[in-house]
Amino acid sequence: MHGILCMLLLHPMDAYLEQELGRRCRLLRFCWEDSPQDLRDDFLRTHGPSVRALVTVGASSGADAALIDALPRLEIIACYSVGFDGVDLARCRDRGVRVTNTPGVLTDDVADHAVGLAIAALRRIPLADSYVRAGQWKADGLGKYPLTTRFSDKRVGIIGLGRIGLAVAKRVEAFGCLVSYYQRRKLQGYPNYTYSPAAAELAANSDIRVVACSLNEQSRRIVSREVIEALGPSGVLVNVGRGAHVDEPELVAALAEGRLGAAGLDVFEDEPDVPEVLMALGNVVLAPHMGSGTRETRRAMAELVLGNLEAHVLRKPLLTPVA
Amino acid sequence: MHGILCMLLLHPMDAYLEQELGRRCRLLRFCWEDSPQDLRDDFLRTHGPSVRALVTVGASSGADAALIDALPRLEIIACYSVGFDGVDLARCRDRGVRVTNTPGVLTDDVADHAVGLAIAALRRIPLADSYVRAGQWKADGLGKYPLTTRFSDKRVGIIGLGRIGLAVAKRVEAFGCLVSYYQRRKLQGYPNYTYSPAAAELAANSDIRVVACSLNEQSRRIVSREVIEALGPSGVLVNVGRGAHVDEPELVAALAEGRLGAAGLDVFEDEPDVPEVLMALGNVVLAPHMGSGTRETRRAMAELVLGNLEAHVLRKPLLTPVA
Repeated sequence: MHGILCMLLLHPMDAYLEQELGRRCRLLRFCWEDSPQDLRDDFLRTHGPSVRALVTVGASSGADAALIDALPRLEIIACYSVGFDGVDLARCRDRGVRVTNTPGVLTDDVADHAVGLAIAALRRIPLADSYVRAGQWKADGLGKYPLTTRFSDKRVGIIGLGRIGLAVAKRVEAFGCLVSYYQRRKLQGYPNYTYSPAAAELAANSDIRVVACSLNEQSRRIVSREVIEALGPSGVLVNVGRGAHVDEPELVAALAEGRLGAAGLDVFEDEPDVPEVLMALGNVVLAPHMGSGTRETRRAMAELVLGNLEAHVLRKPLLTPVA
Repeated sequence: MHGILCMLLLHPMDAYLEQELGRRCRLLRFCWEDSPQDLRDDFLRTHGPSVRALVTVGASSGADAALIDALPRLEIIACYSVGFDGVDLARCRDRGVRVTNTPGVLTDDVADHAVGLAIAALRRIPLADSYVRAGQWKADGLGKYPLTTRFSDKRVGIIGLGRIGLAVAKRVEAFGCLVSYYQRRKLQGYPNYTYSPAAAELAANSDIRVVACSLNEQSRRIVSREVIEALGPSGVLVNVGRGAHVDEPELVAALAEGRLGAAGLDVFEDEPDVPEVLMALGNVVLAPHMGSGTRETRRAMAELVLGNLEAHVLRKPLLTPVA
């Protein structure tokens, strides 16, 4: 890229990615989250016209229409994420702005995390860890830790049998779990996985439900009150998608009242804000949106962002275009 | 059994098991752990001669030679556990006392727990849960939680490819992990699993090492200083066997000094005592010996104990005899 691109970063990024971008581009850094609106406006007025590329995270803070409009020479938005629900794709198409994401390289990590959260939620692993660290095991004596619930052989319903959903399915099959899934279309080539044409039906036939689809208008709040009721007091919800996939107030109430058995949650509606009620519940495992947060994967994601930008500058086909 | 057997329980057991034993036998309960030696001696002098069956947990407190000798009419020891390292088998054979355990029914749970601990240790799941609950995510902002380490595709070395070891192998294969194993003899019929004739060699060729063998004189401290050094600063130890499989002081020092990367530990040398140093470490996940601790499995274990006792009274073949 060699200084051709004026690149805008609005959020702190992976250190390696920032370093490589700095080596290859003219880099503009601005801390969007910590700046009041008048500072944002000032910054965009002064620097917006020179920006040709934006690297962002594709979640809620990605790139809305107002930001895109404030960057008149913008050519490409490279998301350092698989999701791009925070990017206004329609506006990008209108403006001819290309969009890329980082699919594939984070599939294994997110699927591992989903299985890890499911086992941790059923077997109460964080609670067990706290129990030992607090000296409670020693105080109570052997065999007093409450019994938990088996993971093997459970019925696992997956919302969205894309890359991540399929990777989850492959893993849980090895635990003897029966896999079913819901998405718009039945998938060919997976006769072992049962297709459910409705989300609530999937929930009623699952012990564990894993949200692994992308966020769009069809999938927003797909885990509704009805779905949570169908999962029921022994059901478990694992969310490695987006917080907005779930009716969060309803989820919190159901967990607190025991109408839902347990949950493993990597994502929340208003991150990094997590509903206060969840903080005190023993039947939930909480994680700070870290599904893809391993050194191995973040390096691969950074390389893919750089590869997409390089391809754009060299007018080669983008590696992983979204639009 | 209908009152034929005078049954001794020295430790509090699963509520369902105690209830069923109470319905079927003359039940003597005595709390061994909380009683000083003179009370123990009194109890055994008074009641020992009438005891014909003992239900115990086969770990360190199982049944030593002195206890067996204090029960002159003892016919059978039924372990409510798969391990029986705490039972003096030689003395049982001399005396003609039968011994049973509960293999098979807890395999899936212990294997699930091993995989759960491995993912939890690599992905720092309990630490992530505490981070969110303590409000640290909100304070730090998005993306500040430290990166973790991938689980998929790691090389997993298993000590002991018995029932539990094989169940672990089957599960981790679905995560793309390469499986190798160490035990006395190479196993036929598993060409995908690489055999290591030495424990230290296995450690040097593994990223994650899982202890899944039974405890005996050959396997005591099989995870030695040499083995821990071979695993190294990015290696992970998962122990769902027994605390005595590991050189515990060396393990604790290696974890504290970063000479070993991480550990997931369900068992300890002197349970419920856990080395104080471990309580403060972020690179370890601790659990209170709960590998088989699910409602589903404990019920199945109880049924197997009852089935073995029933068979003994009816002079039928024992279901799962050890001796």
